[in-house]
Amino acid sequence: MVYKPVTGGVTAPKGFKAAGVAAGIKDPTRKELALIYSVVPAGAAALYTTNQIKAAPLHVTKEHLKDGRAQAVVINSGNANACNGNQGLIDAKAVASEAACLLHLPAEDVLVASTGVIGQPLPLTNIIKSLGQAVAALSEQGGGAAAEAIMTTDTRPKEAALQFELAGKIITVGGMAKGAGMIHPQLATMLCFLTTDAVVTVPCLQEVIHSAAASSFNLLDVDGDTSTNDLLVILANGQAENPAINKKEAAYYLFQEAVLKVCTELAIAIARDGEGATKLLEVRVINAASREDACLAARAVAASNLVKTAVFGQDANWGRIICAVGYSGAKFNPDRLDIFIGPEKVAQNGAMLPFSEAAAAEALAGSKVSILVDFNEGTHKATAWGCDLTYDYIRINASYRT
Amino acid sequence: MVYKPVTGGVTAPKGFKAAGVAAGIKDPTRKELALIYSVVPAGAAALYTTNQIKAAPLHVTKEHLKDGRAQAVVINSGNANACNGNQGLIDAKAVASEAACLLHLPAEDVLVASTGVIGQPLPLTNIIKSLGQAVAALSEQGGGAAAEAIMTTDTRPKEAALQFELAGKIITVGGMAKGAGMIHPQLATMLCFLTTDAVVTVPCLQEVIHSAAASSFNLLDVDGDTSTNDLLVILANGQAENPAINKKEAAYYLFQEAVLKVCTELAIAIARDGEGATKLLEVRVINAASREDACLAARAVAASNLVKTAVFGQDANWGRIICAVGYSGAKFNPDRLDIFIGPEKVAQNGAMLPFSEAAAAEALAGSKVSILVDFNEGTHKATAWGCDLTYDYIRINASYRT
Repeated sequence: MVYKPVTGGVTAPKGFKAAGVAAGIKDPTRKELALIYSVVPAGAAALYTTNQIKAAPLHVTKEHLKDGRAQAVVINSGNANACNGNQGLIDAKAVASEAACLLHLPAEDVLVASTGVIGQPLPLTNIIKSLGQAVAALSEQGGGAAAEAIMTTDTRPKEAALQFELAGKIITVGGMAKGAGMIHPQLATMLCFLTTDAVVTVPCLQEVIHSAAASSFNLLDVDGDTSTNDLLVILANGQAENPAINKKEAAYYLFQEAVLKVCTELAIAIARDGEGATKLLEVRVINAASREDACLAARAVAASNLVKTAVFGQDANWGRIICAVGYSGAKFNPDRLDIFIGPEKVAQNGAMLPFSEAAAAEALAGSKVSILVDFNEGTHKATAWGCDLTYDYIRINASYRT
Repeated sequence: MVYKPVTGGVTAPKGFKAAGVAAGIKDPTRKELALIYSVVPAGAAALYTTNQIKAAPLHVTKEHLKDGRAQAVVINSGNANACNGNQGLIDAKAVASEAACLLHLPAEDVLVASTGVIGQPLPLTNIIKSLGQAVAALSEQGGGAAAEAIMTTDTRPKEAALQFELAGKIITVGGMAKGAGMIHPQLATMLCFLTTDAVVTVPCLQEVIHSAAASSFNLLDVDGDTSTNDLLVILANGQAENPAINKKEAAYYLFQEAVLKVCTELAIAIARDGEGATKLLEVRVINAASREDACLAARAVAASNLVKTAVFGQDANWGRIICAVGYSGAKFNPDRLDIFIGPEKVAQNGAMLPFSEAAAAEALAGSKVSILVDFNEGTHKATAWGCDLTYDYIRINASYRT
């Protein structure tokens, strides 16, 4: 086993501290302010939402990342600070400045992110007040509290971390994410914060997160809506003292695989915790003519409202699966396609195959439902993740704002 | 008033008869077989689903329409005859042949369509048996029965018809449609059958339905899923004896507008009857830089699960509206956009505007909710239709197949 799972989330790597505290933003009884801090300046890279409406903190983070360096990230939940005009920008900058002041850093080394309701003014005073507590609470065991503080409709915190060895040094990659609704990332992600003690150049970091997101968060769908606040940030503080990862050779790919593993674990955790979800939906497409075709088809099935409701109803309605593949834009031969629900083959050569309803029902009864679509065309594959669409999704979203 | 609404649906135009009868396909207590018949051969054109998985009857209809001529259409509900391999094609052809035999027509002049569950063999014997009854029941008052027979999860039949005068002759355009779920038409539509007694050339018919669908059915969304069976057919039998409509001059545009009006009325009826829907959602985008930008944005808002659930919950959550505009792909300036819910302006210049929650609540309380997005950029506009997303959508679709 090259990669060893460890606990600690974003504070698993050397030289990272974190905290999560209450801040009186939306719910005074919950942690709503998270802080991640590296004991030394870190190389940093980020991916942003492709939504043309971008929340204010994303603009500030992008500005502060121009030098590829950061040392702290402040994240609040309960308020998205999106669509707040110029005041939103002023507020986001004020959060960064106050944190910088308390941590004795240049403001440019502090990144900011927000998540929650769109279009309501950020309760800046409360956040500023709570920042002092967050700084005081910073600890090497603080990853869990931080992961809790970034939750909105999430029912549980989402953390992952692993270690691997490189040239005699132990490198750790940690991460946390939030997200349950408005999840249909495109080229970027929902909120995800990754930390590592690896020595890696910023261009390599940027490439690694781009490729990791493409195979994890970008193949994830809860409800087809791409958020205004999507952000993925990675901080690499070099405390592992490995020979620098600076070009695409063995060490780079080892590190890339580690980041992908952490991102995939977080993406699956988000799908499993989708708003109202009772089941994780895993859709694999195999033997496609290209990776792109496999991705398009896998994601369309995972994103289909009709597939999601059938999974909720534990109904082996493969017609909806093939229908979603059909409109996905993927190239395939309709007469060659096979479909499996769990281990049960339910369609062959694009048509019905008499199958065991009992076996299909069993495959649909668990907390994880696996759908496999075999194009029987080429050698490429992809996996996408989603969840079922339930009464609780409606309940949660019919009155989220109020 | 140039256009006068009339009753009668597909049998409103001269020389058309229709029928709807039980056929023992899925539910023996319901009408499941519809027949439309023109007393003389009619010019005909069609649009087909863009889903790569196309139901068998679509292939047969396309083949039979090569000569631009048809005299009858047989439609069954309760079974989609999609993904049934070669047997599906054989069955669809058998339906057309049997109807042709009973009506003394060449098989090529009979079109076929199916709607219902995907991937289950068509109960051909029952359909063949019932075709005789359908032929016997053909009547100039049969439009309503036919509209009933094509329903699946629809709660009510959908018909429209209107008349206008051209060169001293009265021209009538009639239509019926079905659709409640798996509604996200792309370049084609759900099932829609139009009839007219106008004298029109087939190339003109084809252009007219293409442009009418673009501004009606293609701006409609119930659940983001594009069906395998989408089909729009128009039959023009020339019984109105008007001077032939054969090029793009005044008469052509008068006829085009009539077809668009009928299609729009049917599209709105489908949105209003969306699976589980309690409210019709109308989304208008105005002052866009191009028609395409307006269409993209209007449809994204009407298709957003989060907007749909907020409408169900009567929550003036404009953040979800702007978020959907943001990921729609439409070009616009985020700092210029205004949003209205009913008459109440809820956002201005892309940011919150203090608004009356009472007025917004009133606008959300009715059976029709209007959202207006003003880009303040150019002169183009578009309207899209959808419905709310409710507990009943989940109930209906968690066990549709069984």
